[in-house]
Amino acid sequence: MKILVINCGSSSLKYQLIDMENEKVLAKGLVERIGIEGSILTQKVNDEKYIIEKPMKDHQVAVELVLGALVDSTHGVISDMSEISAVGHRVVHGGEKYDRSVIIDDDVMNNLEECAKLAPLHNPANIIGINACKKLMPNTPMVAVFDTAFHQTMPEHAYMYALPYEYYEKHSIRRYGFHGTSHKFVSLAAAEMMGKSIEDLKIITCHLGNGASCTAIKNGKSVDTSMGFTPLEGLVMGTRCGDLDPAIIPFLMREENLSAEEVDKVMNKKSGVLGVSGVSSDFRDIEAAAESGNHRAQLALDLFHYRVKKYIGEYAAAMDGVDAIVFTAGLGENSKESRKEICKGLEFMGIEIDKEKNNIRGKAVEISTDDSKIKVFVIPTNEELMIARDTLELVK
Amino acid sequence: MKILVINCGSSSLKYQLIDMENEKVLAKGLVERIGIEGSILTQKVNDEKYIIEKPMKDHQVAVELVLGALVDSTHGVISDMSEISAVGHRVVHGGEKYDRSVIIDDDVMNNLEECAKLAPLHNPANIIGINACKKLMPNTPMVAVFDTAFHQTMPEHAYMYALPYEYYEKHSIRRYGFHGTSHKFVSLAAAEMMGKSIEDLKIITCHLGNGASCTAIKNGKSVDTSMGFTPLEGLVMGTRCGDLDPAIIPFLMREENLSAEEVDKVMNKKSGVLGVSGVSSDFRDIEAAAESGNHRAQLALDLFHYRVKKYIGEYAAAMDGVDAIVFTAGLGENSKESRKEICKGLEFMGIEIDKEKNNIRGKAVEISTDDSKIKVFVIPTNEELMIARDTLELVK
Repeated sequence: MKILVINCGSSSLKYQLIDMENEKVLAKGLVERIGIEGSILTQKVNDEKYIIEKPMKDHQVAVELVLGALVDSTHGVISDMSEISAVGHRVVHGGEKYDRSVIIDDDVMNNLEECAKLAPLHNPANIIGINACKKLMPNTPMVAVFDTAFHQTMPEHAYMYALPYEYYEKHSIRRYGFHGTSHKFVSLAAAEMMGKSIEDLKIITCHLGNGASCTAIKNGKSVDTSMGFTPLEGLVMGTRCGDLDPAIIPFLMREENLSAEEVDKVMNKKSGVLGVSGVSSDFRDIEAAAESGNHRAQLALDLFHYRVKKYIGEYAAAMDGVDAIVFTAGLGENSKESRKEICKGLEFMGIEIDKEKNNIRGKAVEISTDDSKIKVFVIPTNEELMIARDTLELVK
Repeated sequence: MKILVINCGSSSLKYQLIDMENEKVLAKGLVERIGIEGSILTQKVNDEKYIIEKPMKDHQVAVELVLGALVDSTHGVISDMSEISAVGHRVVHGGEKYDRSVIIDDDVMNNLEECAKLAPLHNPANIIGINACKKLMPNTPMVAVFDTAFHQTMPEHAYMYALPYEYYEKHSIRRYGFHGTSHKFVSLAAAEMMGKSIEDLKIITCHLGNGASCTAIKNGKSVDTSMGFTPLEGLVMGTRCGDLDPAIIPFLMREENLSAEEVDKVMNKKSGVLGVSGVSSDFRDIEAAAESGNHRAQLALDLFHYRVKKYIGEYAAAMDGVDAIVFTAGLGENSKESRKEICKGLEFMGIEIDKEKNNIRGKAVEISTDDSKIKVFVIPTNEELMIARDTLELVK
């Protein structure tokens, strides 16, 4: 069975075609600048690239081209669209409605529209992508896999904010959490590497990329996570500030004469390691600048590491203990320096990293010492595969 | 040597006259409704109350009456104002200027005015109180003791927010922390009870009152604290929301059509356990409501306890370990239930409360079991005494 995984942004579309017999990626690709001058599709099959530059006025044209590329007699990997048994769509926000992946029907589509208010930058693009696929593959089952669903197991005391209760009732203001597909994937992989059931483990997963979040996973269930009502809360990120004294916002609005929209933009786009360092939102640039003696770049890294470290302590307390820590995503998988800095000093908790084992990039390995009471892993995340697995489960 | 301690609010004034020979409180009192109809002064000497009801148009009139009450031939405790060797003033915000208490001179007064922008609700009242005292006791040395000073030892990675760096440079936006006098007092007391030097200890102090904050104190120095730029951040409080996804604020402003001032008021005055429970900002009312089955009251308590618990884990990580936890202030000193709930599940860290020992109110005692690796204390705070001690140190 072959499953197509689609991740639609406002002007982009990422896809993978996965053969579920062996979970092998047959083809993967990226469409950029949809609806903008310079639209381009790049498909990779093994190491071979196939590029189509062509105007794409909307997502439907983009999906047509994707399907065309997949069945292309020279560059394609299947001979007919009917070989695609199902499509798994990444959807950012499922609100409180979805605690798991779901086959898409009219009801689901209506609910996604409702959730769009909670994720105005993401859900509309996800909906457009689903509609485009439905038009071109009307008889292929489609599944929505939500970034929020995994976190719907959080207890009330972890997801409620101490605001007037009516804001929860009226506006659904609560912690939702994101990156759920990734946290779920790497926690399951960690359990497997430990040779234990996920039901018996307490795991803290650290998804550290340009967006970043930590999750406390107890017996396979998310019980707390650092992103909140939106993906702004929690860790310091590429351009996002993360945790903040909320009173700073009205203060800043007055002092800098900013509107609500403007302050939102500052916190989401101009803060994080970019705002602190003034150098870049890319951690590689910041690491380079810090190494050459830039104090603010070093400060940005210190802020980032310190906050992850604190969340590890916090979530250990939240779960009454912890068995394993997992690092994943861009920085988590690739920066031995960041992993070292985050774990430095946590020996008192029973966390000890082996310097040699930690000297790796992008491989699933245990990096703790043999004596470390708490196991530490690097596990490359694979959200597309998780989406495909969820899709398979629902359509098989 | 006798020292007068003054804590001035916008329409109130608390005072204590302390004999520093034996640190005994000779008299203490409260003036309420200054500048408002129904002004009243209540002075207590031992168990005897002396009440003056009289119009007080401003703080100077109030201070005159306080001094009059202290030298009153029937109800007073000293025969002449000259017996007051010094006055210690509580000042909320010392900005980055003051990392310790200081004798008040013209320079200090100018700096306090500058800091008023950072604490518009508090510093102006503190300044009025100082000026009133200076007029009536022009030759008595006065000392300013800051709520923020103790936290000025925080490292940069603990006090900086991940906002554009220019906001720190232009508007001094950073974490300051508050309740410093209380955190310092109880950490020193804990070290004494442990028979150890504060220099050798890692202590987490939990000041849990209607305002609440946790502090990580390493070798006697505050290295992190839960209140931030203002006293809004951190724990769930009586009417304050504490930690929040900052993106909620612009969302709320749009949805509820609130101004920056209005949303600030919601977060400071209508949130916390009051906002969640809908019952009261007083924990005693909420505990009663929860006991009688009110779900939202129980939720408010759960939120409060859970967040303190998480901060304990977080600050243990921040200090690379912890030797002692201290509970203080209204709830910390008096609610065995809250202390129990907060510590529940932290046995994995080496924190274990003795049920019998915990069954106390308002006394300085160790409440951990003999086996508990980390010691847990209840220590009544005494900010007035701490202010008097700092004052003595500077004027003696």
